[in-house]
Amino acid sequence: MDCMIKSPFWDRYLKLVREQLIPYQWGILTDRIPCETESHAVRNFQIAAGVKEGEFSGFVFQDSDLYKWIEAVGDILQYGRDEDLEQKADEIIGYIVSAQQEDGYLNTYYQLKEPDRKWTNLLECHELYCAGHLIEAAVAYHKGTGKDGLLKAACRLADCVDRTFGPEEGKLHGYPGHQEIELALLKLYDVTGEERYLNLSSYFLEARGNNRFFEEEFERRGRISHWTRGQVDEPNREYNQYPYAYYNQFHIPVRQQKKAVGHAVRAVYMYAAMARMAGCCRDEKLLDTCRELWKNITGTQMYITGSIGSTPSGEAFTRAYDLPNDTNYSETCASVGLIRFAMEMLLNEADSSYADVIEKALYNTVLSGLSLDGRHFFYVNPLEAVPEVCEANPERHHVKTVRQAWYACACCPPNIARTIADLQSLIYSVDGERFYVHQYIGSEREVTLPSGTFRLIQESELPWKGRSVFRFESENPVSGELALRIPQWCVRYSLTMNQHSVTDFSVERGYLVVKREWKDGDVLEWVLEMEPSFCQADQRIFYDAGKAALIRGPLVYCLEEADNGPYLHECRVDVQGKPELYWEETLGGYYGITVPGVRYSGRRQECLYEKAFVEKQAVKLKAVPYFLWNNRGEGEMITWIDIM
Amino acid sequence: MDCMIKSPFWDRYLKLVREQLIPYQWGILTDRIPCETESHAVRNFQIAAGVKEGEFSGFVFQDSDLYKWIEAVGDILQYGRDEDLEQKADEIIGYIVSAQQEDGYLNTYYQLKEPDRKWTNLLECHELYCAGHLIEAAVAYHKGTGKDGLLKAACRLADCVDRTFGPEEGKLHGYPGHQEIELALLKLYDVTGEERYLNLSSYFLEARGNNRFFEEEFERRGRISHWTRGQVDEPNREYNQYPYAYYNQFHIPVRQQKKAVGHAVRAVYMYAAMARMAGCCRDEKLLDTCRELWKNITGTQMYITGSIGSTPSGEAFTRAYDLPNDTNYSETCASVGLIRFAMEMLLNEADSSYADVIEKALYNTVLSGLSLDGRHFFYVNPLEAVPEVCEANPERHHVKTVRQAWYACACCPPNIARTIADLQSLIYSVDGERFYVHQYIGSEREVTLPSGTFRLIQESELPWKGRSVFRFESENPVSGELALRIPQWCVRYSLTMNQHSVTDFSVERGYLVVKREWKDGDVLEWVLEMEPSFCQADQRIFYDAGKAALIRGPLVYCLEEADNGPYLHECRVDVQGKPELYWEETLGGYYGITVPGVRYSGRRQECLYEKAFVEKQAVKLKAVPYFLWNNRGEGEMITWIDIM
Ligand SMILES: [Zn+2]
Ligand SMILES: [Zn+2]
Repeated sequence: MDCMIKSPFWDRYLKLVREQLIPYQWGILTDRIPCETESHAVRNFQIAAGVKEGEFSGFVFQDSDLYKWIEAVGDILQYGRDEDLEQKADEIIGYIVSAQQEDGYLNTYYQLKEPDRKWTNLLECHELYCAGHLIEAAVAYHKGTGKDGLLKAACRLADCVDRTFGPEEGKLHGYPGHQEIELALLKLYDVTGEERYLNLSSYFLEARGNNRFFEEEFERRGRISHWTRGQVDEPNREYNQYPYAYYNQFHIPVRQQKKAVGHAVRAVYMYAAMARMAGCCRDEKLLDTCRELWKNITGTQMYITGSIGSTPSGEAFTRAYDLPNDTNYSETCASVGLIRFAMEMLLNEADSSYADVIEKALYNTVLSGLSLDGRHFFYVNPLEAVPEVCEANPERHHVKTVRQAWYACACCPPNIARTIADLQSLIYSVDGERFYVHQYIGSEREVTLPSGTFRLIQESELPWKGRSVFRFESENPVSGELALRIPQWCVRYSLTMNQHSVTDFSVERGYLVVKREWKDGDVLEWVLEMEPSFCQADQRIFYDAGKAALIRGPLVYCLEEADNGPYLHECRVDVQGKPELYWEETLGGYYGITVPGVRYSGRRQECLYEKAFVEKQAVKLKAVPYFLWNNRGEGEMITWIDIM
Repeated sequence: MDCMIKSPFWDRYLKLVREQLIPYQWGILTDRIPCETESHAVRNFQIAAGVKEGEFSGFVFQDSDLYKWIEAVGDILQYGRDEDLEQKADEIIGYIVSAQQEDGYLNTYYQLKEPDRKWTNLLECHELYCAGHLIEAAVAYHKGTGKDGLLKAACRLADCVDRTFGPEEGKLHGYPGHQEIELALLKLYDVTGEERYLNLSSYFLEARGNNRFFEEEFERRGRISHWTRGQVDEPNREYNQYPYAYYNQFHIPVRQQKKAVGHAVRAVYMYAAMARMAGCCRDEKLLDTCRELWKNITGTQMYITGSIGSTPSGEAFTRAYDLPNDTNYSETCASVGLIRFAMEMLLNEADSSYADVIEKALYNTVLSGLSLDGRHFFYVNPLEAVPEVCEANPERHHVKTVRQAWYACACCPPNIARTIADLQSLIYSVDGERFYVHQYIGSEREVTLPSGTFRLIQESELPWKGRSVFRFESENPVSGELALRIPQWCVRYSLTMNQHSVTDFSVERGYLVVKREWKDGDVLEWVLEMEPSFCQADQRIFYDAGKAALIRGPLVYCLEEADNGPYLHECRVDVQGKPELYWEETLGGYYGITVPGVRYSGRRQECLYEKAFVEKQAVKLKAVPYFLWNNRGEGEMITWIDIM
């Protein structure tokens, strides 16, 4: 393992993933933990493997839940093996391998329910999506354990897919309705060096939107929808307002796409693959497309928390500046995908804006998706929520104000798990003789540059304090550059080397670059000023007009009912007032912030509408990190606060 | 005709209905005016009558569009006959009568498209709804013209329905999926004195929710939905979050219903019939149910504009205090139905709260539904709207920010027409020796009390000024009581009789009652103070927290982009500041109001979120009557304004 996390902040989450989330998910997936909707995921494989009797149950993409769990297991094992956990995983992998057909095909839904209808409904039925997740799981499990049983199965499945799909005559000219396999195949190519996987991935990307496959497939199966089980008018069942092809991003060829549209998770999974492909093939034009899409998302369609997807209708992007705070979707998975897209871009070109978004999405949306007990999850991450409103109003009903124990469509929990578990992959990168530090997360790693190898120990006080220390250990001096990201939120920073101020540095694309011959015992101290401050949204975001959000460092803050009482929308914040920090020991310890404001209290009235009798009080508003919301019981929460 | 409208304010609308709306609708219904979706309503009848070739086209309830047009024609003709208009109506009535079957059955959809499936899908297919509208049209046309051709057809249809439905063995034990015929039959009973119609109406109300007819019917037709044309899981196709039986108010027997639920138009149409039935049969228990439902709506589920229906999902009520301003439905038809419910209650028991709501809904929502050209209509009446947002966001996309020329589902325009056309029915009532004035709308009418008859001439300056004058003309003095509603919005009023202050009066349930022997030449002057003032919503309406609405007299005011520029949500209003009136000649003349406030201007930024740099400016906000919004081009509008 080339990078260990050593961070009090993150160790808690890694421990949560290892000790709570992963075992809990295992319990769900094996139906050992009773659940409103039984998962049945492992049992489906057991039935397909012939070791259990029964019928398939669950969504058409149920297999992926299990694959994502294995991926998280593989990721977590990179920091340290665990016999019990490996045994559990190996047992399940045994079922998976046994369930696989001779020809490499593997999908329990089709094998058990519709064996004659394989590859007939790529648009809706997630076969390639599940295959992608198997591949990613296999790669991660191989990385974490060195075992290659699942990896071989993944190759057999990839080979089967490769025999079935492609531009050649006699093959299906299709591509997935839910993108995912594109990135997976690139990872498989990395591990195996097999160029067919690279080419297959490239085929899936290039064919998309370049033919009328989904329409033809739709006609071939008699216009039957998997979801309604009856004939429908259009291939996609529900997607308000935009042409249905936008939903799965096949409205135009991938290279021509400039705006992020449709289902947000599918979109960013695909963009991540495109970014990796661009790097892999040094394809500058494809990289340009990725840059455009990146700019479109982060410049016009992203929340301050790094979440995306403005509507539950299609779990989708809408349009530039359409970022409602109370009816949004902001799926946890979408931020996971956005982080992957960002990381692929960052590996292509070090620009701090990519790492800024990773930090934002990670600390706010991904962590917000997980409760502090590791067993409850948000799927939707609203920027404001009132329990009574979410309960009563259909347009806000998808917003849950309590993290749920599980979801029938359980995409988010394992996505949180694998993102946290593979945290190490987001922190550093090497480019030539330059070593990049993208994230300030305590960790140790071996760094190999052209001129030698050293060990870097990062100690960081983020997200609570702005100080990070870098210690170098090496037998011989290593000359090279260290590039430290200057976060977008930081207005003042200081750097000392062995206690002397560093003045000889350059700044490139948001990174402070120090060139030097690094010696054993060198200590860099990097201090980022981290004053709480108010943010304002671009005026074109109508929903945030006249409002401000409070941030400190990478953390977005919010007001919760637990601190401020109900009816939070009565509050106004004084953006000229001085925010004050306080340390709070509960919830694992956090800095809260108080800010002055006023409250215009309403009252319960005889009539719904009465002559205004407004009581104005000065108040001290208490804000907590957004990612911690809803860990103290159900209650209101707002992020964007009206300015007084 | 017993009551003529003589009001500069309302004459404009009556003229608009007579000269624009009715001819325009005639053009649409006869397909003479090209329309995105052709109406085909008249042609359906011509085909059914055998005078044209072709196929049925339109919604299953297309017939009702035509019936509602005839009803509006009948209503408008009460103020003065019109040969051309009558000729048009008579021609159409000719087709209707010819289309009717021997047995009285009449519904062009079923006759032309599914002749063997009559009465097999009451839940979805609106046969009884259309029948109800035919009856209402016939009654109105008879009242307006004295002609009884359509009335006879209506009786034949009602007889056919009566032979088909009822508690007796061998009859169908069903009731309508869309209530409407219940009230219509009571009107038909009024005109004809035929008790079978009263009993049939009573049957429809009492059977509702008392058996499992809709479920049985659903099974009998093989679970086929009219809307999806395929099998479905539940009788109703789409109705988020609440049990489907709530949608059509058959979840429990009608008499047990205490909360308004489901599709708002269906609900209030039914409540109106219940209220009339209660009066008709002196059914105190049923009246109690109506009072409960009234209290529930007006006390917990009604907007300040007198609109109802908080969600597009099912065009429905949601729950107490759930009154979003930007995603609501507030269908114009629902306010029309609410007015009818209120008026039936008012005739049962004079209480000013009923008349207050009529005034509120009429001046705000009904009039807001109609453009000043009489040819454009709102179906949804938001309390705030931003064109860009409604365009971009699926949860707000049902909110149109421009009145539409027509709707495929054209329920609202003719409902506006008939409400305005039958305005006279809302103004007065007589109870024993007491004569009630519910609305201050210039008009003349003959009043007959037990002790004699007089002519009352009301001159009113509402809604622009608070003064109304009542002149009495009579040959002999008439003793009796005059009851003047004291509007809820009025805090001070004065009454003079022949220029002397009246001190001898009582106040009963919101009415000021003067008992006297009324003489020819008596002049009462009634002045209602009408200062602009701010309203505040009950605290439990979360959406209005920290906000105020500006009203004056019966009118709700709003801010429009036309007066205040874009980004209205940046504004804060000073509720301690003094609102000032200004008279504006455009749009037919209106009082606008200016109020002091501030604006926290945003700006277009490099990044979506930047350090707050808020510019605070003092501003004078300009508010206009809500009903006039969107008559000066498309733009933002808000009703509830943040308090500063
Ligand atoms: Zn998810
Ligand atoms: Zn309508």
